[in-house]
Amino acid sequence: MLEQLKQEVYVANMELPKKGLVIYTWGNVSGIDREKQFVIIKPSGVEYETMKPEDMVVVDLDGKVIEGHYKPSSDTATHLELYIKYPEIGGIVHTHSSFATSWAQAGRDIPLYGTTHADYFYGAIPCTRKLRKEEIDGEYEKNTGLVIIETLENRGINPLFTPGVLCMNHGPFTWGKDPAEAVSNAVVLEEVAKMAYYAESINKDAKPASKVIADKHFYRKHGNHAYYGQNN
Amino acid sequence: MLEQLKQEVYVANMELPKKGLVIYTWGNVSGIDREKQFVIIKPSGVEYETMKPEDMVVVDLDGKVIEGHYKPSSDTATHLELYIKYPEIGGIVHTHSSFATSWAQAGRDIPLYGTTHADYFYGAIPCTRKLRKEEIDGEYEKNTGLVIIETLENRGINPLFTPGVLCMNHGPFTWGKDPAEAVSNAVVLEEVAKMAYYAESINKDAKPASKVIADKHFYRKHGNHAYYGQNN
Amino acid sequence: MLEQLKQEVYVANMELPKKGLVIYTWGNVSGIDREKQFVIIKPSGVEYETMKPEDMVVVDLDGKVIEGHYKPSSDTATHLELYIKYPEIGGIVHTHSSFATSWAQAGRDIPLYGTTHADYFYGAIPCTRKLRKEEIDGEYEKNTGLVIIETLENRGINPLFTPGVLCMNHGPFTWGKDPAEAVSNAVVLEEVAKMAYYAESINKDAKPASKVIADKHFYRKHGNHAYYGQNN
Amino acid sequence: MLEQLKQEVYVANMELPKKGLVIYTWGNVSGIDREKQFVIIKPSGVEYETMKPEDMVVVDLDGKVIEGHYKPSSDTATHLELYIKYPEIGGIVHTHSSFATSWAQAGRDIPLYGTTHADYFYGAIPCTRKLRKEEIDGEYEKNTGLVIIETLENRGINPLFTPGVLCMNHGPFTWGKDPAEAVSNAVVLEEVAKMAYYAESINKDAKPASKVIADKHFYRKHGNHAYYGQNN
Repeated sequence: MLEQLKQEVYVANMELPKKGLVIYTWGNVSGIDREKQFVIIKPSGVEYETMKPEDMVVVDLDGKVIEGHYKPSSDTATHLELYIKYPEIGGIVHTHSSFATSWAQAGRDIPLYGTTHADYFYGAIPCTRKLRKEEIDGEYEKNTGLVIIETLENRGINPLFTPGVLCMNHGPFTWGKDPAEAVSNAVVLEEVAKMAYYAESINKDAKPASKVIADKHFYRKHGNHAYYGQNN
Repeated sequence: MLEQLKQEVYVANMELPKKGLVIYTWGNVSGIDREKQFVIIKPSGVEYETMKPEDMVVVDLDGKVIEGHYKPSSDTATHLELYIKYPEIGGIVHTHSSFATSWAQAGRDIPLYGTTHADYFYGAIPCTRKLRKEEIDGEYEKNTGLVIIETLENRGINPLFTPGVLCMNHGPFTWGKDPAEAVSNAVVLEEVAKMAYYAESINKDAKPASKVIADKHFYRKHGNHAYYGQNN
Repeated sequence: MLEQLKQEVYVANMELPKKGLVIYTWGNVSGIDREKQFVIIKPSGVEYETMKPEDMVVVDLDGKVIEGHYKPSSDTATHLELYIKYPEIGGIVHTHSSFATSWAQAGRDIPLYGTTHADYFYGAIPCTRKLRKEEIDGEYEKNTGLVIIETLENRGINPLFTPGVLCMNHGPFTWGKDPAEAVSNAVVLEEVAKMAYYAESINKDAKPASKVIADKHFYRKHGNHAYYGQNN
Repeated sequence: MLEQLKQEVYVANMELPKKGLVIYTWGNVSGIDREKQFVIIKPSGVEYETMKPEDMVVVDLDGKVIEGHYKPSSDTATHLELYIKYPEIGGIVHTHSSFATSWAQAGRDIPLYGTTHADYFYGAIPCTRKLRKEEIDGEYEKNTGLVIIETLENRGINPLFTPGVLCMNHGPFTWGKDPAEAVSNAVVLEEVAKMAYYAESINKDAKPASKVIADKHFYRKHGNHAYYGQNN
């Protein structure tokens, strides 16, 4: 079932090692069929080199496996919370990419230092608070999803405008209208995380770019007045 | 029309991802035919992997599309200002290469710390001021070109001697006698930006090299007394 | 003799340059046949490009060569001490990978800053004390093994829970149930070392993750209650 | 003439871009035939991709071209000074490799922080003083050789024990018994420069390794009591 989405999710997962975002079995990509309310996600702990489209696992929004010969990613419950909360999201990615994970380990938001960032993320990329002991000991992966949502809500962040977050002491999650866009947001997040780190090293007093630059670049690529690219 | 220059501009654009200076659709290279007063530039938002020479867009110096089935790069107006101001420039490159962009985000000139820099850029590589709100809200890309020119003029910089600049909170532009030279200046700028960052990290009190070293290395490769290479 | 283990040790050694952990003849992997009490290890100073499975050297636990046309790795005595002390170890790796070696040169433990670390190493990755003059002038490689053991013992570290150590001013050793796992622990150690360095650079006041996160992630992948992957 | 050495010098030059030490036409390798007193060196400003063994240039110790259709490297005079002063040197390399050049731009010796360094370089890798105005305006490349010699002499350094140096504001020179060894010393110098930079970033109070470690590792690989590798 859902063979086309399965293929999309498979291809998006295979992009993670190709783009240098993960090694071994790290990371995972999912996609959702909003009509059927089914999510397709990478199987847990399977090597990318041997993974095939038919290894993708289909689950419903309660996490019940609908189809697949493997267990789904251990992070499935995190993905589900985000899909449930944000109906406009079509694909989600989790990686351990080096620079984004380092910001998550440092427990800091990534400030918007320039137009590369502004072209894809509107404002700083937020870092969640630490999970509490009872959240970790309880339904850890589901609570990871809930703390992402809490972070976005508390800051009034539109997930389509800022399609990524850092989970403190853990790593990045990104999303998009489909699995492929979620992956490209993960690639850009890593690049932006690297350059923010360098920029602060080069100038300890570096200041975030102005809101007017953030607006200009974001709306140059997004919304009704976009004029970047060929489709508008 | 201008099939040879179109090919040159295409090849120069394809160098950007090959040299690791850009990902996805980032960056752009243009070239100018000074007789016809036409500029050839990368189309906006088109992937490098599928781009072909015939996708290059021909525009006049007012930015009007003369030939091409795509919209030109959204940065076209920046290129045009530089071509109009500096008749000795034959090619222009814009990238988001990691280290050069980080210096731009840090808002600092790249000091001349050594001979690698001095072989290609005479003196520090300047960083522009921030654009003002009205410059961003107005003709942003054209104003980006104007602030580059303002920076070079204010500092008395000969663009042929210092063939590159950092646009604050944005990234680098480089140029050269043709598109290929503009690209190689972009590659060298990235290398120089990396080593200046490391040098300052290794020694917080690192001092720029003396003017006599800058002169020696620059004129070893440029001008009438050059003795590097085979053509002099 | 022991052709299968020889092949495993060979393949594990060849992973070191492939994964970017070593250059030239640096590093070495060994494996042990616990029944026969024989260790198979890389020959000393032989290039990876020309190395073959039959070049692996078989030694007994006293370091006597049992089979092989080459001298064993100069680090053999270090490996033997670890195999003798820890019967649960099946493979050992030594590399000069850049970030792990830099922590060893800095003489610091790698703090557990996140879940990437916690998935593989329980708690900080310890750095040994300096060897004393008489330990270096004496049986240096054997004493390197002894100081690793001293470090683990003094801190009450279970080598299966924290399968790696940094030898001060030298570099990392990792181990595992077999040579392949020892190599993957070396790869992960390098990644963890890199991200801990970046995290501290991004936030000078970065704090290690809580013990509850360390427990959660470690036991998600290890032991009776593991639920990551397909085999449990 | 000297076809075999020409081939060796060519192969050694081609290693520079392969090992990531240079881009474009940067860097150069030479070798010497001590009997004939002829030096073979890379031509100036020729691209590695198109370079052939017969493009190597033969010069005598006065720098006079004996054979070759190209001008020799602009750094030839530096090489010649070192060959004249140190009869035990058979090959010399100059690169602009990123980390070694950054230390040269920082104007600092690379401290011996660990065994990777100690295996190849005995003690710190020295950085020369700045050249004086008259040394730069005069016979610059020859004076570069002379300041290298001055640095080694002033510090009582045996060039066979410490086969490399940093020229302040410029970059590294390394050497060896033949061109191939000089190149591998350039590769190791870059690796050592990188790890010393990281080690200091990880621990601002990092201390160089003790002389006893320097002795142990150096003499494990060099001299009559060496026991690393297969040839002793």
